[in-house]
Amino acid sequence: MPRIAYVDGAYVPLREAAVSIEDRGLQFADSVYEVAVALNGRLFDWAGHLARLRRSLAELSIAEPMGPSALDLVARKLLAKNRAREAILYLQVTRGAARRDHGFPPNARPTLVMTVRPFDMSIRARQQATGIKVVTQPEQRWARRDIKTTSLLPNVLAKQAARQAGAFEAWMVEDGTITEGASTNAWIVESDGTLVTHPADHNILAGVMRGTLIRLACADGFKVEERAFSLQQASAAAEAFITSTTAPCLGVVSVNGRPVGKGAVGPVTLRLGRLLWGEIERQTGYRPATIG
Amino acid sequence: MPRIAYVDGAYVPLREAAVSIEDRGLQFADSVYEVAVALNGRLFDWAGHLARLRRSLAELSIAEPMGPSALDLVARKLLAKNRAREAILYLQVTRGAARRDHGFPPNARPTLVMTVRPFDMSIRARQQATGIKVVTQPEQRWARRDIKTTSLLPNVLAKQAARQAGAFEAWMVEDGTITEGASTNAWIVESDGTLVTHPADHNILAGVMRGTLIRLACADGFKVEERAFSLQQASAAAEAFITSTTAPCLGVVSVNGRPVGKGAVGPVTLRLGRLLWGEIERQTGYRPATIG
Repeated sequence: MPRIAYVDGAYVPLREAAVSIEDRGLQFADSVYEVAVALNGRLFDWAGHLARLRRSLAELSIAEPMGPSALDLVARKLLAKNRAREAILYLQVTRGAARRDHGFPPNARPTLVMTVRPFDMSIRARQQATGIKVVTQPEQRWARRDIKTTSLLPNVLAKQAARQAGAFEAWMVEDGTITEGASTNAWIVESDGTLVTHPADHNILAGVMRGTLIRLACADGFKVEERAFSLQQASAAAEAFITSTTAPCLGVVSVNGRPVGKGAVGPVTLRLGRLLWGEIERQTGYRPATIG
Repeated sequence: MPRIAYVDGAYVPLREAAVSIEDRGLQFADSVYEVAVALNGRLFDWAGHLARLRRSLAELSIAEPMGPSALDLVARKLLAKNRAREAILYLQVTRGAARRDHGFPPNARPTLVMTVRPFDMSIRARQQATGIKVVTQPEQRWARRDIKTTSLLPNVLAKQAARQAGAFEAWMVEDGTITEGASTNAWIVESDGTLVTHPADHNILAGVMRGTLIRLACADGFKVEERAFSLQQASAAAEAFITSTTAPCLGVVSVNGRPVGKGAVGPVTLRLGRLLWGEIERQTGYRPATIG
């Protein structure tokens, strides 16, 4: 079956799906996006993604292409058309197509693009046991990382550097502080069991999974502190892990080749992973064969 | 006559010209661009633009879609197809279309897009007499502004803020220093006639017109210093001006509503403008009706 995409009101085969070369998403990175996962045919934490999308659009004064319930309808219809039960839903809104000029165009209508692609989330459950490696990269991004824009070139370069170093993720370091990963949030577990992650200020993107984990961990009795931590603190931590929509909770076993804690996925990370997979099952009914 | 664009090997009507929604230029701002002007049917400082494009591509490890002489051929053919004598040529190269993933895709072929649009450069010559207003904005861009990428969202926001304040350009201020404008380079003229502009390091884009003016001004006996200057120094300067490909040399009469120098375009700016328009005529044979 061909993959179907949604572009500005039409459901079209992905290989034909296109936007104008004068779309401001292409010419200026003047656009925002969301990535959500569908599991068992249901979108996980979907309300959180829709709320963040609205905030991103508002911060950039981009008009909403449609209201949340219409967006929800398009997303469900696209999942159905792709017969996708386990999938990544990608949604992008640009300021629209207009004659090239830096300032906002007076009459542009926002462009809405949505794609769905099959994704086997159970690989993340299996990765929970082995964990991942992280390298650090200098923080190079712009000042408003709290807005989920497609100005992702520095993230691309950091992720590529991680790949070339044999790592899964790059943690960005700014003035000695770890902000976040190229596409994930960064966490450490201190020796007393306190969870630490960077505050959701302008320096990081407030991940939806990050927010869900804070809520679940607090309810489970964990102490969660939103504060910046250094590379030294990460190296000295009992455990470290990352969270993201497509990688709920993966333990970090090494940073720049040096082991974190015992150099294996720790018990706190495993417990937090179980909390998140439990929430995934609660919302969607999805349960992977293995949870590490 | 419909405007014709070039997209990946084909000359197509602009209104049909499109790229895949999975193009990395759209999804990641993983692309670079150039803007050049054609005057009297000839591209001004074209070699400088082609050289900078190659550098931008190399810095990001994006393959060249074709060599400089083939690019030159496409540009000339596109100008001819659009019957454009005075025009803006826009050229964008992305890393190509691929399944969405931050790291470099293994087999993507770069996407090449080129457009031409009519542009009456003589409006810039008329603007030389009146000058322009500038406001300042906090510098928000990423760390590698020396690469001419389409990660332009902060430039868009700064330009829009300038428009809303009734100004032509926004100067970005970082740690008290003026880096450059949203789409132009920033210059001041000190009381002894020395020209000062930010060094061409990672913090600014080395404008082609900036380079041309440095060369012409030095040959004309001016002292040119490439060093950072502050907002205070700009306010206290004898004159200030901006340079860019589409606005060769425009005097800045006020910054944040406060006059620079005598609050009018100064004699040094006018002389530099004449040097640039002379070079434009030398290279292209184009001469606007009025030079302010």
